[in-house]
Amino acid sequence: MGEFDLIARYFHRPDGQGPRHAIVPNGDDCAVIAPAPGMQLAVSTDTMVEGRHFLSTVDPARLGHKALAVNLSDLAACGAKPLAFTLALTLPRVDQAWLAGFSGGLLALADEHGCELIGGDTTAGPLAIGITVMGEVPAGQALLRSGARPGDELWVSGWPGEARLALEAFRGTLVPPLDGEAFEAVRLRMERPTPRVALGLALRGLASSAIDVSDGLLGDLGHVLKRSRVGVEIALGALPVSPWLATRPLAEQQDNVLAGGDDYELLFTAPAARHAEVLAAGQAAGVPVHRIGLLQAEVGLRVRDGGWGAEEPTGQPVANRWTSFDHFKMA
Amino acid sequence: MGEFDLIARYFHRPDGQGPRHAIVPNGDDCAVIAPAPGMQLAVSTDTMVEGRHFLSTVDPARLGHKALAVNLSDLAACGAKPLAFTLALTLPRVDQAWLAGFSGGLLALADEHGCELIGGDTTAGPLAIGITVMGEVPAGQALLRSGARPGDELWVSGWPGEARLALEAFRGTLVPPLDGEAFEAVRLRMERPTPRVALGLALRGLASSAIDVSDGLLGDLGHVLKRSRVGVEIALGALPVSPWLATRPLAEQQDNVLAGGDDYELLFTAPAARHAEVLAAGQAAGVPVHRIGLLQAEVGLRVRDGGWGAEEPTGQPVANRWTSFDHFKMA
Repeated sequence: MGEFDLIARYFHRPDGQGPRHAIVPNGDDCAVIAPAPGMQLAVSTDTMVEGRHFLSTVDPARLGHKALAVNLSDLAACGAKPLAFTLALTLPRVDQAWLAGFSGGLLALADEHGCELIGGDTTAGPLAIGITVMGEVPAGQALLRSGARPGDELWVSGWPGEARLALEAFRGTLVPPLDGEAFEAVRLRMERPTPRVALGLALRGLASSAIDVSDGLLGDLGHVLKRSRVGVEIALGALPVSPWLATRPLAEQQDNVLAGGDDYELLFTAPAARHAEVLAAGQAAGVPVHRIGLLQAEVGLRVRDGGWGAEEPTGQPVANRWTSFDHFKMA
Repeated sequence: MGEFDLIARYFHRPDGQGPRHAIVPNGDDCAVIAPAPGMQLAVSTDTMVEGRHFLSTVDPARLGHKALAVNLSDLAACGAKPLAFTLALTLPRVDQAWLAGFSGGLLALADEHGCELIGGDTTAGPLAIGITVMGEVPAGQALLRSGARPGDELWVSGWPGEARLALEAFRGTLVPPLDGEAFEAVRLRMERPTPRVALGLALRGLASSAIDVSDGLLGDLGHVLKRSRVGVEIALGALPVSPWLATRPLAEQQDNVLAGGDDYELLFTAPAARHAEVLAAGQAAGVPVHRIGLLQAEVGLRVRDGGWGAEEPTGQPVANRWTSFDHFKMA
C-alpha cells in the first residue's frame, strides 16, 4: 500500500464526516485555516516514540487516542479550544490492523473535541507519532505560566499519580504488587489519558496561570514558579489520592502524585477570593479540582506535612525528595 | 545535556534576535500566533528521516536548511508568506557539533524568510526531523491545485532535474560519471534547495493553480490535473535544461526533469493572456520561469517531442515513460 492509499483509507474523512474548520482542507500543498474574529491561535507540538513514550505492546487505538490527548492537554493548559491538527506518522511497516486501530482511536478523540486533521505525512522508519495541534483562544486570554501571584491558591485537577503507578506495575517494581482490577484501572489512565479541555476553557479569565502535568507535578510547577517569579508552599495532606493509589504505602502515594508524570492533569493558580468559582468550574467541566498549596512572594518550593489550615498549609517542613520524571529514562 | 538545555543552547533566540511574530513565544504550553487582519493561515507539515530523505553523511547545516526549505516550498506553492514553524527533532545522541551545524542552517533560512520557531520537542531515537510550518495568505487568495483551466499555460520555475542527477551520482549509476565541479554544483541543489517563496507571493492573483515539485514533475502535475479535471500537452523541446544537466545524454535529461523529484520548484498554470505578467513575476522574484505545456479540456497527460509552436506544443506524440519518484525507494 502506497502513502496516498494509506492516507485515503485510514485518515481521510469523507465530506460531512468529522469536524470541518479548514477553508482549504487536507490534500493541497497547505491546508488553510483562520481563527474566528477576535480569536488567536494557540499552537503546540509533541512527538511520541516507541520505547520512550509508549510500550510496543500498547493497544493501537489507545495509542492513537493518547498521541492526540497529550497535545490537546497543552491546548487545555492555555485555555484554547481545539481546532485542527497535523499528523506525522513514521511506520516500520504497513500493518492494516494496527492502522485501523490507531486511526480509530485518534479520530474518535478528534471528533469528540471538534479537532480537524488538516495535514500530515507518513514515512517508513521506526514507529513515531508527531502531532502539531492548533486551537482558538480569545485575544489576550491565553492562560500562561507567568501569571501566578503571591496569595493565589494552587490547584490540580483529577487524580495525578495513577499513570506512574501503572508504569511501575509494568516494570514490576511494586511491593506489594497491584491486583488485577487496580492494574487495569490505572493502566487506562496511563494508556488513554483524558485531556482536560473543558476545564481549561472554564478557567479562562479565572485562573492566573496554568500548565499541564506531563513531567511530574513538582517539576512542572517549577516552570510556573520560575516564570512567575514566586514561591509556593504545598500541603502534603491536601494532595488528592485516588482510590487505587490509596491502597499503596504512603511514601509511594506521595512520590506518584508529586513526581509521577504522564498525568495530563491541569495544575493552575487562581486568586483565593475566587475559590468558589474554581470549584464551580471543575464541577461544570466534570472533573474534581483540589487546592494543594499557596503561592508566596518568597521564591522556592516548600512542602509541609500537614493539611490545609484556616488559610494556608499546616504542619512541619519536609525535605523535597521529588525530582522530575524524565521521559528519556523510560526505555 | 538534558532536553531543556539542548533547546536553550541551540534553538532559543534571545529577545531581539530572529523574527518575532508570536504573541506568546516558544516556552509556554502553547505558542500563540494570529494572522494579520484579513489574512488566513496556510499550514503544512513534512518529516525527513535519515536513510529515506537524506544520507547520513550530509552536512548538518545543509540538512537544517533543507528540513525547513521543503516546508517553505509548500507555503510558496500556496502563495503564503512564512510566519512560524514548530520543530520535532528525534536524535540518536546529543552531538553538539552536529546540533550547532543543524540549528545554524535551520535558523539562517528561517531568519531569511522571517519565519519564527515557536515550539517543538526533542526525543531520543533514530534521526528524524518533523516540521510544521504556518504562513499568511490573504483570505481567498491561496493558490490551489484545483484552479487550472483549459487554455492556461503550464510553467515551471528554475532547473528541475538537478537534485536527481546528484542522487544518481551518489548512487554511482551515471554513465559517463559526473566531473567533480558538476557534482558539487548539483549536490548543492539536492542538499540545499531554495524554496521559491518570493515567486509564490508574486503569483498570487496571477497563477490559476500551483504545486511544488517534490515527487517528480509529471507525478505532481498529475495531482493538479486530477483536482482541476483538465488535461495537458507537454512540449519536450520547451523543458528547461540546466547547464549541468545539458552535458548528459538526452534521455537522462528528460528523465531527470520530468521525473527526478526533490526539486522544490513551483509548477503552476496561468491564463495565456497573462504570459508577460508571469515572466515579469519570475524576473521580480529572481528565478527564471519556463512555459512547458498547455492545459486542455481533454483529460490526460500528453507529451510531444517538439518545442513551442505559434500557440501550442509541436512535434509527434511520445509515450509517457516517466513515473513518480518515490521517497520510500531511496534507502
